[in-house]
Amino acid sequence: MNKTDKPYVLGLDLGATNSVFGIVSQAGEILAQTSVKTQGHGPDPATYVRDCVEALQPIISHTGGMEELRAMGIGAPNGNRLSGCVEFAPNLPWGDGVVPLARMFSEALGIPVAMTNDANAAAIGEMAYGAARGMRNFIMITLGTGVGSGIVCDGKLVYGSDGLAGELGHVIVEPHRGRECGCGRRGCLEAYCSATGVARTAREILTTTDTPTLLRQIPLEELESRHVSEAAWQGDEVAKSIMEFTGEMLGRACANFACFNSPEAFIFFGGLTRAGELIMEPIRRAYEANILKCYAGKAKILVSQLDDASAAVLGASALGWEL
Amino acid sequence: MNKTDKPYVLGLDLGATNSVFGIVSQAGEILAQTSVKTQGHGPDPATYVRDCVEALQPIISHTGGMEELRAMGIGAPNGNRLSGCVEFAPNLPWGDGVVPLARMFSEALGIPVAMTNDANAAAIGEMAYGAARGMRNFIMITLGTGVGSGIVCDGKLVYGSDGLAGELGHVIVEPHRGRECGCGRRGCLEAYCSATGVARTAREILTTTDTPTLLRQIPLEELESRHVSEAAWQGDEVAKSIMEFTGEMLGRACANFACFNSPEAFIFFGGLTRAGELIMEPIRRAYEANILKCYAGKAKILVSQLDDASAAVLGASALGWEL
Repeated sequence: MNKTDKPYVLGLDLGATNSVFGIVSQAGEILAQTSVKTQGHGPDPATYVRDCVEALQPIISHTGGMEELRAMGIGAPNGNRLSGCVEFAPNLPWGDGVVPLARMFSEALGIPVAMTNDANAAAIGEMAYGAARGMRNFIMITLGTGVGSGIVCDGKLVYGSDGLAGELGHVIVEPHRGRECGCGRRGCLEAYCSATGVARTAREILTTTDTPTLLRQIPLEELESRHVSEAAWQGDEVAKSIMEFTGEMLGRACANFACFNSPEAFIFFGGLTRAGELIMEPIRRAYEANILKCYAGKAKILVSQLDDASAAVLGASALGWEL
Repeated sequence: MNKTDKPYVLGLDLGATNSVFGIVSQAGEILAQTSVKTQGHGPDPATYVRDCVEALQPIISHTGGMEELRAMGIGAPNGNRLSGCVEFAPNLPWGDGVVPLARMFSEALGIPVAMTNDANAAAIGEMAYGAARGMRNFIMITLGTGVGSGIVCDGKLVYGSDGLAGELGHVIVEPHRGRECGCGRRGCLEAYCSATGVARTAREILTTTDTPTLLRQIPLEELESRHVSEAAWQGDEVAKSIMEFTGEMLGRACANFACFNSPEAFIFFGGLTRAGELIMEPIRRAYEANILKCYAGKAKILVSQLDDASAAVLGASALGWEL
């Protein structure tokens, strides 16, 4: 059987806690799924790979065996598409090491394996199964603990000279007196628009004003971005103004990003998008207010069409179709 | 003879005043050159094309005839690679029109013709004959009356969804109280780092301080960026501080641009680069001071290797190799 006749790909969403595997059809259906704990396999990544391959056997058999599997894709923090390695991922068991996981899984399973980071995997997933089907130029923005991005130009993910391209969360959007960012610099988009950034905006408002708000019911140190979303949905004015502020930062930033690849769409993914129009409307408004005239009205501002629970596995699996 | 055996391409640098043609070898040698005035052919672009083709006959004969010509590339303000049209170019004779010059030249000459804007042509020229030979990921920044850019990802120029990608001169680098830009918005890179922007910085300093400087010898309204370069070379402190300021703006902006495609190099082209290290050193310094850690020390900050006089024709011609 020709490689390209094989109907399924295997996806691995490699998280700090769980490694979730799915066998996925071309239509984006997850036919079988399993998971193993990411930690607890010892310091040698070979043991992790061996344990994973063992755990995979039942779902591989269930979907017709290895001969049905075309390739495997891995989405991992700090996963580098060019090297196939997880590089210096502080929350994975191999810490400061460079682990050639793509090669190791490929040798263990006998199929081609590619790896990339979470945001790129999300972009590829969106292109294969989601809102970006048929699009050749778009930008994926993932709003999680950090702000990640995956950039697609002419149908291809942009990896850059070192596999590390597409860190739009670390574009400095406030050049003067910007917030400190986890990267050690100041004023990055991520410092304002990540879940952490939103919680920080909320804490700043709560400690510098005495405006009444539902958010004061939550102890300051426990305040998270989801509390802000929830309060905003309940009509809380302070929470709504935080969403407004966050959306405006994102919209303005995206207006700048458009100057790179004039995308058909910006697709947002992650927890913050659960605020729905409370965040999307300010994004769109700030985008159109700040966009260069020649791009005005062109890009759609969309929310991911991938289901939150399965998006990471789908995204990872979609890399397999590229091999 | 196979099309790909043909040894030469034809380049047209379509400027507001002159249309300069060159026949170029794969090594980037201009074998023959001619030019016609861009204006004065009447409102019908067909007349312009007919007059150009007539003027081309001697140089085409000189280099062995049409059978030696593989293709033609046109670099023009507002030239769109995807449509092959000059679109709404205020300084060209067709003003607000959309003129399908690529198709018109192709029909007149019987060879494939592609068109793009000046900055993209410069990037392609640099890739074919200049500092970017062998590079797969780089960003060209042209510092002229405006600030233009050409972005190359994985060996290909980024055109985006509409052919208008790569307007990095209009990334807003000063989100608060930024300078007015010709595009109607505020705070664009171009408002600070174009020749016009540099002259404006100089005028701001001359009118708001009384520091002695050579620049005061020039009537304020005649002050141009070249006067600033020249004074800086003579050791004038005010002029040097203007170069420093401009370089810092560029370096900081490029540190942001790196987050997009993690390029091997930024290549600067245009009048301002004649200031040499007086501008390049501050660019490099600000770049390294502002770059995200994972990109630090990776991208080279270079000056174009194309000769100013022939760069535009070479750049345009290089498009022909892509056809």
